[in-house]
Amino acid sequence: MPSIKVTYFNIKARAEPIRLALTIGGIAFEDERIGKEQFVSLKEQNAWPFRQLPILTVDGKIIAQSTAILRYVGKLSGLYPSDPYQAALVDMIISQVQDLEGAMKPSGAEQDQEKKLKMRSELASNVFPSMLQDLDRVIQQHGGKYAVGDSISIADLFLYQANTSYSSGAYDGIPPTLFQPYVHIQKVVAAVKTHPKVAAWEASH
Amino acid sequence: MPSIKVTYFNIKARAEPIRLALTIGGIAFEDERIGKEQFVSLKEQNAWPFRQLPILTVDGKIIAQSTAILRYVGKLSGLYPSDPYQAALVDMIISQVQDLEGAMKPSGAEQDQEKKLKMRSELASNVFPSMLQDLDRVIQQHGGKYAVGDSISIADLFLYQANTSYSSGAYDGIPPTLFQPYVHIQKVVAAVKTHPKVAAWEASH
Repeated sequence: MPSIKVTYFNIKARAEPIRLALTIGGIAFEDERIGKEQFVSLKEQNAWPFRQLPILTVDGKIIAQSTAILRYVGKLSGLYPSDPYQAALVDMIISQVQDLEGAMKPSGAEQDQEKKLKMRSELASNVFPSMLQDLDRVIQQHGGKYAVGDSISIADLFLYQANTSYSSGAYDGIPPTLFQPYVHIQKVVAAVKTHPKVAAWEASH
Repeated sequence: MPSIKVTYFNIKARAEPIRLALTIGGIAFEDERIGKEQFVSLKEQNAWPFRQLPILTVDGKIIAQSTAILRYVGKLSGLYPSDPYQAALVDMIISQVQDLEGAMKPSGAEQDQEKKLKMRSELASNVFPSMLQDLDRVIQQHGGKYAVGDSISIADLFLYQANTSYSSGAYDGIPPTLFQPYVHIQKVVAAVKTHPKVAAWEASH
């Protein structure tokens, strides 16, 4: 196995699915968490491909972009299907979850707090329920114990982290109960949460 | 080979990299292009996983989300590396190009034309040049004839279509010369454009 280091801030967000995939795969890695000053300094030195974190350092070679890293570690850890159709199902679930974030961008950039909350209200009432209902149905159709069949995949970990983020109450105007009504999504969340290696990781972090 | 159908509108946009990958791979496919009325009707019938196009129909099974489809056809056509590190380089280039689109979203949602153009001006002057400069450097570092080494991949096709879109003048306030200064990006664009199967496809469409 190569020498692997995950570099990110000391938060879950974009790195946690990567850390969980490596943990589930039993792949040793350095869990580097840097502070804001170090981030600014390294960013100014142009130390990373796209001036962003997370990055993954594999035997000295750097991979950037969180979903590129997630697919890479998914392959190393057996959490990304080798069958192209099964992999496409994993990929389409990840893309749909990413689209939630994309839909948030205009409200996140809005400076006027009143306008921002109005946009968030529209997202929470109409846009997100429609997207999550579709995702729930796709998981119902293709899932078993996990989102795609009975084996845990990076799609489960990505969705699990989205559920954690949106349930945290950290997004102004988005109710932390947003993901609650979707039973197939929640089944996946529960299956990840109770996975022995995830439970052990979470107990120690 | 399975029976394959690409369903989209009669434009390039999100479907063209998929069509080009299949074409380069020599994989026969039905190139279904639907009109707005048919789109609205099928969308209301909930005919697709995420109420969006493109979709790919493979032996009757539907794959949604353009990059999930692109990875799938990339695997079928030999345009997605089987080596995980090489695949990660392809994935990180695709993600960086997607991030351009993500950065456009707030301005795309802005109703006030003056504000929108101000946001676009900031994108064109600062945000995009920084992102494209990084991308150009990554391609310089990892590329050969194409963006990752000497073999054409879905990263090349994705970047090629982005160059086409941003050079079209269709985005208010974004100069069509945005991609021009980046020599490694332009080398990839030229290599794709002159690929015999791409040239033949474009001559006939």
